[in-house]
Amino acid sequence: MDSVTALGLVAAVLTTGSFLPQAIKTWKTKSTKDVSIVMYLLLCTGIILWTAYGFLIGSIPVIAANVVSFIFTFAILALKIKYK
Amino acid sequence: MDSVTALGLVAAVLTTGSFLPQAIKTWKTKSTKDVSIVMYLLLCTGIILWTAYGFLIGSIPVIAANVVSFIFTFAILALKIKYK
Repeated sequence: MDSVTALGLVAAVLTTGSFLPQAIKTWKTKSTKDVSIVMYLLLCTGIILWTAYGFLIGSIPVIAANVVSFIFTFAILALKIKYK
Repeated sequence: MDSVTALGLVAAVLTTGSFLPQAIKTWKTKSTKDVSIVMYLLLCTGIILWTAYGFLIGSIPVIAANVVSFIFTFAILALKIKYK
């Protein structure tokens, strides 16, 4: 793998993985007052479109990063709806 | 522009724009208790790497989406640090 692709993969792991601490925090505290529901509605919708785009251009990294991101962001959205 | 590229651009606008409602909410309420600082530290770092990756592969959409995302997510991070 060339160094540019490696940089892209590290970037993907960081941005995708970033949603996990928020999901864990929200899961533990059951408090979502300060979390914007509009953000997670837009984000989940956008991530679904990114996944479709990934399939259409045949990019495994785009598909993989967005499927994992969707799991985390949808969990945050579901917790926001449950505990709002 | 072909329909696949258009889909990618709509996806980029949604995921990039999603951070604005959170930034506005945090700006207005000055309350950040439920927002994960680890999420925004990882996200800002990842977005910087995505921007570098965009420059290296010469992708204007990747650069543009990540520069705008960085402005919004860094604002949320700064507000989280200020009001925590």
